[in-house]
Amino acid sequence: MSGGGYGPAGRARLKRFAKLHQKKYRDREKLFLAEGLRTVDELLRHLPEKDDLVALFLEPRMLSSLETSALPADRIFLLDGISAGRLAGTTTSQGVVGVFRQQPGCGLERLLGVEQGRSLVLALDDVQDPGNVGTIVRTASWFGASALVSGPGCADRYNAKAVRASAGSVFCLPHHASGDLAADLRALRSSGYRIVCSCLHGDDVRLSGKLPEKAVLVVGNEARGIGEPLLDMADLLVTIPHAGADPGVESLNAAVSAAILMSVFAL
Amino acid sequence: MSGGGYGPAGRARLKRFAKLHQKKYRDREKLFLAEGLRTVDELLRHLPEKDDLVALFLEPRMLSSLETSALPADRIFLLDGISAGRLAGTTTSQGVVGVFRQQPGCGLERLLGVEQGRSLVLALDDVQDPGNVGTIVRTASWFGASALVSGPGCADRYNAKAVRASAGSVFCLPHHASGDLAADLRALRSSGYRIVCSCLHGDDVRLSGKLPEKAVLVVGNEARGIGEPLLDMADLLVTIPHAGADPGVESLNAAVSAAILMSVFAL
Repeated sequence: MSGGGYGPAGRARLKRFAKLHQKKYRDREKLFLAEGLRTVDELLRHLPEKDDLVALFLEPRMLSSLETSALPADRIFLLDGISAGRLAGTTTSQGVVGVFRQQPGCGLERLLGVEQGRSLVLALDDVQDPGNVGTIVRTASWFGASALVSGPGCADRYNAKAVRASAGSVFCLPHHASGDLAADLRALRSSGYRIVCSCLHGDDVRLSGKLPEKAVLVVGNEARGIGEPLLDMADLLVTIPHAGADPGVESLNAAVSAAILMSVFAL
Repeated sequence: MSGGGYGPAGRARLKRFAKLHQKKYRDREKLFLAEGLRTVDELLRHLPEKDDLVALFLEPRMLSSLETSALPADRIFLLDGISAGRLAGTTTSQGVVGVFRQQPGCGLERLLGVEQGRSLVLALDDVQDPGNVGTIVRTASWFGASALVSGPGCADRYNAKAVRASAGSVFCLPHHASGDLAADLRALRSSGYRIVCSCLHGDDVRLSGKLPEKAVLVVGNEARGIGEPLLDMADLLVTIPHAGADPGVESLNAAVSAAILMSVFAL
């Protein structure tokens, strides 16, 4: 354990990791930042390999809050509050920042190969808000989804805000970054998955009963919903009905809608 | 319609309204800010009284996006992008900012007086995140909840981030700011409401069936959940079960959990 922000090597390290707030550097280094005690703690608990923790920065006041005895001492660094805040990208840093290795994608083949048993795949079609992406990762982990497939243009699940919203569950949900979501969903459909899309004029979700064993639940863009090419492919179009004639709001939040559908189908 | 940021009167107006990002000034002026086309549009659609719109600031490029012909012309102001961004408190302003009047509280008596029919009340126990509060307002509006009761210490539903997360539904859900949440829930209970709390070790929500006609759904703090005094008062303790032995995350997001419970009980 050493001072993380002191001396030329320490400063260079901080500068390098602070760049991970930019997607360009995350993609290049295949690393990501996580901030906050609960989020970092959850990531440490589900670390795929010991090496997937690259660095852990702690303010001295947080030393007793986190179980670090099993972690490699040369990757733990003490930091003052100002440097921690700068690294966390927040003014109110919780005093714990971790740098972790991104997981390799699970590949579509793995999902296509699921022969037996239940499999729920979440597919994100142009979901723009990192908070929504992270919340969907967290909810999908809770409900035991098999994987997340995200189409081009979606917010990065390794964005710091997404990692925070995921509450550190990002290691627990296999991921496939799709270059062509429609093509990938077609492939999943051919291998026995049913495509479920929510929209404002689908069947009442209460009446749709249990999902087929293998299902892809598509989550659409916050403003425009799911794109036409995917809607056209749907085996099931569902709607979460609202109360009264005018609910005072056009739609539910994308992550909320996805959560309600997951609960209907997974519970 | 006039230039909103120009001349001494315009600058003074902008300065006054920009202060509404601070709760102190919101409380004093009984006003709030709303940013973004969809949010402002939804608020305008559900304006309780014409006077509840205090000012509407538009960048010229947005003039054709919003139906303003029925609005009082002396409350609409044109603004350049930089001033709009400053007022909105975001660097990427959508070019539409409204200043609205806060609604007076609905009072507990109105809720206690509900004799017949269904009534679902959401009670917030120390919910800290404005995004969660706004998302709960949006979801509660969608499901036709009767009111929101928020305990002391909750994030302000008129915080700009909460208003954005509510998607402009804040006029559609009566609100009571409680000074003593336990006392108010006791009063609701005496008048026939059942208190429903979610926790990690309650009954499986699938088995709890439909809610009683009159129910209070309590949403707890993001880190600590619902406080003991309220848990002790619960008529029903429910849990949203997770899949597998280790879901990779300790809990669901507060607004997501509230949404799933609302959908179970309201649908």
